[in-house]
Amino acid sequence: MGRVIVASVGYTKVGDHWDKSILDLAVEASKKALKPYSNIKPDVVIVANMFSGQSSKQEHLGALLASALNLVGIPAFKIEAACASGGVAFNVGYRMIRSGEADTALIVGVEKMRDLDVPEVSLALSMAESAEYTQFIGATFLSLNAMLARLYQETYNVTREELSAFPVIAHQNATTAEHAQFRKAINVDDVARSPLVSDPLRLLDCAPIGDGAAAILLTSDRVDEEDEVEVLSSKISTNIFSLYEREDMLTFSATKEAASKAFSEAGISLSDVDVLEIHDAFSVTAALSVEAMGFSKPGEGAKDAAAGVYSLKGRHPALTFGGLKGRGHPVGATGLYQIAELWLQLKGRGGLNQVDGCRIGVAQNIGGVDTTSVVTVLARR
Amino acid sequence: MGRVIVASVGYTKVGDHWDKSILDLAVEASKKALKPYSNIKPDVVIVANMFSGQSSKQEHLGALLASALNLVGIPAFKIEAACASGGVAFNVGYRMIRSGEADTALIVGVEKMRDLDVPEVSLALSMAESAEYTQFIGATFLSLNAMLARLYQETYNVTREELSAFPVIAHQNATTAEHAQFRKAINVDDVARSPLVSDPLRLLDCAPIGDGAAAILLTSDRVDEEDEVEVLSSKISTNIFSLYEREDMLTFSATKEAASKAFSEAGISLSDVDVLEIHDAFSVTAALSVEAMGFSKPGEGAKDAAAGVYSLKGRHPALTFGGLKGRGHPVGATGLYQIAELWLQLKGRGGLNQVDGCRIGVAQNIGGVDTTSVVTVLARR
Repeated sequence: MGRVIVASVGYTKVGDHWDKSILDLAVEASKKALKPYSNIKPDVVIVANMFSGQSSKQEHLGALLASALNLVGIPAFKIEAACASGGVAFNVGYRMIRSGEADTALIVGVEKMRDLDVPEVSLALSMAESAEYTQFIGATFLSLNAMLARLYQETYNVTREELSAFPVIAHQNATTAEHAQFRKAINVDDVARSPLVSDPLRLLDCAPIGDGAAAILLTSDRVDEEDEVEVLSSKISTNIFSLYEREDMLTFSATKEAASKAFSEAGISLSDVDVLEIHDAFSVTAALSVEAMGFSKPGEGAKDAAAGVYSLKGRHPALTFGGLKGRGHPVGATGLYQIAELWLQLKGRGGLNQVDGCRIGVAQNIGGVDTTSVVTVLARR
Repeated sequence: MGRVIVASVGYTKVGDHWDKSILDLAVEASKKALKPYSNIKPDVVIVANMFSGQSSKQEHLGALLASALNLVGIPAFKIEAACASGGVAFNVGYRMIRSGEADTALIVGVEKMRDLDVPEVSLALSMAESAEYTQFIGATFLSLNAMLARLYQETYNVTREELSAFPVIAHQNATTAEHAQFRKAINVDDVARSPLVSDPLRLLDCAPIGDGAAAILLTSDRVDEEDEVEVLSSKISTNIFSLYEREDMLTFSATKEAASKAFSEAGISLSDVDVLEIHDAFSVTAALSVEAMGFSKPGEGAKDAAAGVYSLKGRHPALTFGGLKGRGHPVGATGLYQIAELWLQLKGRGGLNQVDGCRIGVAQNIGGVDTTSVVTVLARR
């Protein structure tokens, strides 16, 4: 198997892009990623997106983007795995290169969410869950996670303040992240006083709705730089589809399995991880994610966050540019924003958000309630 | 690169499935494909689908199907490339196996179209074209193809009767295909007298709306049978996205390039091809497809069809179970119905539709107006 390098990255600011179409956003991120290597023509374009049909009446994004980038002729297609679309697309591109099926790949995640009104975006997101069972009874994606949050708090005696810790970290880091949607610090009181959305989840427990695109240029071992960023592993795992079918709802077993396999393939242990991007779609999601990967013990993810473990200067710096909560969560693009942010960190280009001396980065990107999980390990050589 | 075998196939009848959900259809086809090899647990599940969000308010089909098949844990995702979704998903699965990234793959195409009313399905299909330019001016996918048909007829002096030849062949072959949507023979007068849909295309020039699912079990060289069906090549190419941007609208250059590369990789020439499944979404599409691949000269595809070249007993038997027009065209599944039908032919299981002594089969599956094209070559060893 060959080595795979994250040669460059590009992304748009996350937020309201009323003046740009879904294609405009994808092109903007792609051009930024391609710019440093104008001599490289990708062998394949893979677009990660969840619901362009709903938001933009547009499918066939692969060929649409390839054509807009003057890459006519090359294979191009879209990959969808709900909010894990970005991570899965990265995984497929990575595997194409390491196996020799391609030499270079452009992986572009994009989502346009703000063009939908709230009921529409709520429906679009709930398509990550079963239409026949979960949607049918009126459960939104938010309400499922709210029930999970309640179970988490009651099972492990997690306080409102502890649950608020991840959003507080996310917003703190976002204040100095230029591409973040919300560059505004919040504290635990702000979270506790924010409007109740689905009890016990409040507005500031939940990642926002935003537009954005992130692109990654992957290559085989042809970029000759000292500090190149290599993909050590990327693993996808899937869980029993619906939350209510699982015996243990508080264990994110897809994340657990993907992380275990990825860490093993990469030859790393938890203590090797210098920077961590987790899928903090909701405060409870962040907590269960660090627990599933082993960074915190079961029931202690939120408590550890409250104790500073996941802060920028903590033992496991996480959400270093704001995560889903602060940077924003344009769903199909999120997994690739995570990769781009790890790349910034590993290259030492993190600016005010830089984690000093980091060498190993891990991203965890999920679709549904840990229904699909992708864990990726990157390293600076 | 390792050998890749089409170990088995499964599919539903194409047509109205009011009593089945999109998941039900995908499960039915998958179980049929998996049944002969109950000892095989696929390493990956890839779902091909174009617009499950519109039709079924359901995304995340990969994990949904994997979970329903008790394949929890394995990587699973959806691939979308408009009506070429099936061919592209097959290509990705094939490349994963030949490169050693996977040993077995379950590729499942599914589309639910009948739950949408006509304006809804027309909008869903037009998402294969640019929302900002083509849809915006009110052009449907049908009207674009109608303009192409008029250009084709006027450029090459193609008569109404000649244009009708492919639909007549398709319906003839569908009469004896158990899974076909329309098992009813038609003649050129029927086509000419059928309702005008978008001048010059009439109802019987156009593939119908139907529900269906087709599944393919791909494996590395582990199935030890004398008549195993091997994938010799699968190539994807893309064209300038919108028809109106192309200098030569009558040359399907994505198909031309994909076919040229696939035939070259497979080491075959046109005369080696015993059975041919083409993307006859419209009568004009069929004609331009055989021309792009070289089976007919430019302008002679429809004329050759009228002369019997593409009939079951002709020089290049095509649409052997009815093609998109007769078997039906559940868009995301179509590329995999084509593979399944080639498999039946190459295995000698074609029944009344069998092409005698066939050894090499070719499938061409397109998305948009030849915007994405996938050409696949299969061979019986």
